[in-house]
Amino acid sequence: MSGQFSPAFREELAALMQWRRDVRRFRTDPVPEDLLARCLDSFRLAPSVGLSEPWRILRVDSPAARGLCLDNYRAANDRALAGQDGNNALHYSRLKLSGMAEAPVQLAVFCDESTAKGRGLGAASMPETRAYSVVGAVTLFWLVLRAEGLGLGWVSILDPARLRRDLAVPDAWRFIGYLCIGWPEEEDSVPELEREGWESRATALQMETR
Amino acid sequence: MSGQFSPAFREELAALMQWRRDVRRFRTDPVPEDLLARCLDSFRLAPSVGLSEPWRILRVDSPAARGLCLDNYRAANDRALAGQDGNNALHYSRLKLSGMAEAPVQLAVFCDESTAKGRGLGAASMPETRAYSVVGAVTLFWLVLRAEGLGLGWVSILDPARLRRDLAVPDAWRFIGYLCIGWPEEEDSVPELEREGWESRATALQMETR
Repeated sequence: MSGQFSPAFREELAALMQWRRDVRRFRTDPVPEDLLARCLDSFRLAPSVGLSEPWRILRVDSPAARGLCLDNYRAANDRALAGQDGNNALHYSRLKLSGMAEAPVQLAVFCDESTAKGRGLGAASMPETRAYSVVGAVTLFWLVLRAEGLGLGWVSILDPARLRRDLAVPDAWRFIGYLCIGWPEEEDSVPELEREGWESRATALQMETR
Repeated sequence: MSGQFSPAFREELAALMQWRRDVRRFRTDPVPEDLLARCLDSFRLAPSVGLSEPWRILRVDSPAARGLCLDNYRAANDRALAGQDGNNALHYSRLKLSGMAEAPVQLAVFCDESTAKGRGLGAASMPETRAYSVVGAVTLFWLVLRAEGLGLGWVSILDPARLRRDLAVPDAWRFIGYLCIGWPEEEDSVPELEREGWESRATALQMETR
């Protein structure tokens, strides 16, 4: 296949982005392993600073490991709720913010801050670009999953230090995000937080010039 | 358009990811403004923590502003070169790592760490997810540009504090990356750093289970 793309493809790409959601409500039927492997292949095509490819993935499968992560989420979510005031707190408490109790596939994603790959190129003045590379890879993975009808929910309501301890993660690995993956209960082109009235998307991108 | 995608679309999506490059060699002919605006529209479809949409964009257009950013890059690149040893340094010095002297469109991208949008949801225990949201949005933009035949080069060899000062950026804005955009001199499915022998991509994704 060449590097040329048609107007029809671009329209479908826009639709893919419109229908990509952060999913928190999953059906419990399993994701075929070969399908998951095919989607994970998108990591190899992701941009990374200096070609450092610093992404590291732990599949969280055992009931023990999942229980520790779910406890972590519940404690962090209680603290986050305590930080919301008045009507916000009531509204917050009614939101479903993770599918960690149900999602058939769960991945903890890290950035290896110590990797020698790429020989430091591009990361000398901005070492955070290694973590950004992992985020870019997850973004591609998200799109590829959605193109297969699969949903991804990115959980950030977690204590990273506790998660790294509980999962016995190497010292140099920074926690980036916890991904819940599975078949979504429903499909929608509007974010759940918008449907629930928590926040709405901007209508236009603001840009200044220098 | 629905949220259903065909095997043919998925194949073309994989090709798009295969042909997306970090571009440092641009033709100097301009990018039509309506095309650029259409591509920038992808920011509105990006995921963001709590729907906070913290991306802020400065278009760097004036010769004065471009000159300051290019000086910044050259100084940071000299420091990065000084940090490479022996053969690495020679090899590093021969790489072209930015198109800032030529690219017709240049954008400095920031994250507004002070935004009230999203009411802090999802960012209490991991405030860095705001910056990650900006990275995800840039990743979508990158794909949409490439689908139009346009190239993007993400420059991180910069001193963020100096750049924020030079461009008179609000205090709460964190610098994420400097994007060079234009028509690429050439198209390739292999990263330039790999073609130049600096680093190669991994052949498989490593994953452990917990």
